[in-house]
Amino acid sequence: MSSVSNAFYAQSGGVTAVINASACGLFSELKKNKKKINKIYAGKNGIVGALNEEIIDISKINKSDLNNLYFTPAGAFGSCRFKLNKNIESSEYTRLIEVFKLHNINYFFYNGGGDSADTCLKISRLAKKFNHKLQAIHIPKTIDNDLPFTDCSPGFGSVAKYISTSVFEATLDLKSMCSSSTKVFILEVMGRHAGWIAAAGQLPFHLHGLPIIVLLPEINFNQNSFLKKVKLMVKKYGYCSIVASEGIKNKNRFISESGLKDSFGHAQLGGLAPVLSDMVTKNLQFKCHWSVSDYLQRSARHLASQTDLDHAFSVGKEAAKYALAGENAVMPGIYRKSSKTYSWTIKKIPLAKVANKEKKLPKSFISKDQYNITKKCVDYLLPLIKGENFPKFVDGLPKYTILTNKIIKKKLNLWNK
Amino acid sequence: MSSVSNAFYAQSGGVTAVINASACGLFSELKKNKKKINKIYAGKNGIVGALNEEIIDISKINKSDLNNLYFTPAGAFGSCRFKLNKNIESSEYTRLIEVFKLHNINYFFYNGGGDSADTCLKISRLAKKFNHKLQAIHIPKTIDNDLPFTDCSPGFGSVAKYISTSVFEATLDLKSMCSSSTKVFILEVMGRHAGWIAAAGQLPFHLHGLPIIVLLPEINFNQNSFLKKVKLMVKKYGYCSIVASEGIKNKNRFISESGLKDSFGHAQLGGLAPVLSDMVTKNLQFKCHWSVSDYLQRSARHLASQTDLDHAFSVGKEAAKYALAGENAVMPGIYRKSSKTYSWTIKKIPLAKVANKEKKLPKSFISKDQYNITKKCVDYLLPLIKGENFPKFVDGLPKYTILTNKIIKKKLNLWNK
Repeated sequence: MSSVSNAFYAQSGGVTAVINASACGLFSELKKNKKKINKIYAGKNGIVGALNEEIIDISKINKSDLNNLYFTPAGAFGSCRFKLNKNIESSEYTRLIEVFKLHNINYFFYNGGGDSADTCLKISRLAKKFNHKLQAIHIPKTIDNDLPFTDCSPGFGSVAKYISTSVFEATLDLKSMCSSSTKVFILEVMGRHAGWIAAAGQLPFHLHGLPIIVLLPEINFNQNSFLKKVKLMVKKYGYCSIVASEGIKNKNRFISESGLKDSFGHAQLGGLAPVLSDMVTKNLQFKCHWSVSDYLQRSARHLASQTDLDHAFSVGKEAAKYALAGENAVMPGIYRKSSKTYSWTIKKIPLAKVANKEKKLPKSFISKDQYNITKKCVDYLLPLIKGENFPKFVDGLPKYTILTNKIIKKKLNLWNK
Repeated sequence: MSSVSNAFYAQSGGVTAVINASACGLFSELKKNKKKINKIYAGKNGIVGALNEEIIDISKINKSDLNNLYFTPAGAFGSCRFKLNKNIESSEYTRLIEVFKLHNINYFFYNGGGDSADTCLKISRLAKKFNHKLQAIHIPKTIDNDLPFTDCSPGFGSVAKYISTSVFEATLDLKSMCSSSTKVFILEVMGRHAGWIAAAGQLPFHLHGLPIIVLLPEINFNQNSFLKKVKLMVKKYGYCSIVASEGIKNKNRFISESGLKDSFGHAQLGGLAPVLSDMVTKNLQFKCHWSVSDYLQRSARHLASQTDLDHAFSVGKEAAKYALAGENAVMPGIYRKSSKTYSWTIKKIPLAKVANKEKKLPKSFISKDQYNITKKCVDYLLPLIKGENFPKFVDGLPKYTILTNKIIKKKLNLWNK
């Protein structure tokens, strides 16, 4: 094996506003090391691109497009929801190693969340077994902010900024209307198991005194207590916004599944916000408005946080450094040195520690009455939403790069599972 | 009556990201004319503030707060959903004239949509009847863009920019995920009767070739034709976004009312997006994501259009000029001189022409297959979303002014309807 070989990068799972910034960080560092790195490849649609031998050669992309990926949301090379077989003996793994060997790939970078960290770890173990030299490095990414051992996850800061800004704006709207019309506004945000995003929605309460409460999946939802709280807030302020994690439950049953049926009587997953809106209107007779952010929140590059972009770029860059230094089965994590004047650094985390673990909101971040975040949580969140980095705009729309993602010539037969 | 008198301004109906910019334009012009204008007042919560004699003295607001209203969304003085009695003999009108006389108000500015134009017209007629000198000027505002005789309505350009950017971003997200997961994304936008906002959502298709279709309230919704179109788009592109006006109907029945029932069997207004999502999933077996913009779209000052802000500021300023020139029962409208290199001017429109009329999307703006906008529509929309004007940010959030809105001393007894 020559000392010069190729690197492979893939994006995995739900994408973010800043995942491409991690790719930029990675590529910039790899390009500096021409003695070790020849080609930089990206998988088309994540790890599936490796299985299908659908590989994009980064050097074929023009420079300005590549640089503009820093300003472009979502997964520019395509992502996937694909969990590799749990059984390491499965043909998927042999196929991956076959592709890596054939394309002289000795560096593997996987940009994803908890599941992807697990995949990355498996691939690293497998390479050893097949006697293929491979540096497998995980690059953290998830809007859910639920990865352990890292102070935060790239992607989260920008969602937090988007949601807190959106709630701020919508609550000012509500304030304008409340004297003769709508009194309650509900925003449903992502967060199936952890309430980090919803927590960020309460920042305008702590910074500007606007009446906003949160519903967190860490707390068992109680309808009576909730309605009492909303009534109290509207009595005190005249209006109230509610930021609700999609994943709130009452005794293991999702509130979003609360009994809506279609015309055939089939249970209907209509989202959480309309269920809460109905609850408030019927019980308290307050006019409600509601919104569901869904994809808008995690793709809103036009309002990305500079801190988040710095994190995303840095973990990409560090991942390259780790690989070139011979590290394996590790991930760069973000370590907070200070909150007051925010300072941070990157630290190395073994993947064996990270894989398949979730970090929820700690108890100390949730108020006693459970509808507010604490000062400690505010101090944690504020640095993460700081700083703006607007894309350029052309004809009134952001200038985003849309890659054609042509693949290189295949050398193998089609892959059959 | 002395030649110096007071001016009264009120915000009405659903608010926008730029309605306060109209207030800024109005105030700046009125302040130049100290010979005619003594105090500038604002009604607390719109016309209700006049009825209740809850009046804010603009001179009591500090200068930097007042200037920052240009960057602040929603109605800073409070708005209302309140329709004056149709019968001009009603006590509401006598009360209004009483308040105006007592506070020496000879200039009345009403910042709202079609209903407000009608209110403004009635007040102007009434003043004549009661022999009170009053210049009643309407300042146009509505995100719905449905006011007639003006090329567009201040407030719309910013929603159009927000929705087209959001659909652009979410469709890039969808593109990343479609190979192994979600294939359809649905965004529900405002527009009960007119499809202007939804139309703007299709701009990323025309500018960047992203697969996006629109559902407009001008078109009778046909489920089979819709599903056929979605299937075709997904076959061609691998994914498809749908921007749907909340008000789409099939034979006078809202699609959003399509048969959802709660656990007691009561009909449920769960929003349009989940109904469409259900339709696509059940019939085409495509995984769907959906979002409802609601208040977020009309309060998103962080992404306002500079063209829209220029319009909003100008109609406020022109309204002041009209009043000071002795005009009555008129509204400044926006007149487009050219689309190619966009140029526009303000023209005077008699309120009698405007009141209670709606402007829908013309047929020439809708494609034959009814799921696209035409080149003509694109040419109309593009100038309106052009230009950015970001607010300042403090601690990661936009710097918005939140007024305390203290009222001046009341001179009258409480108003009883």
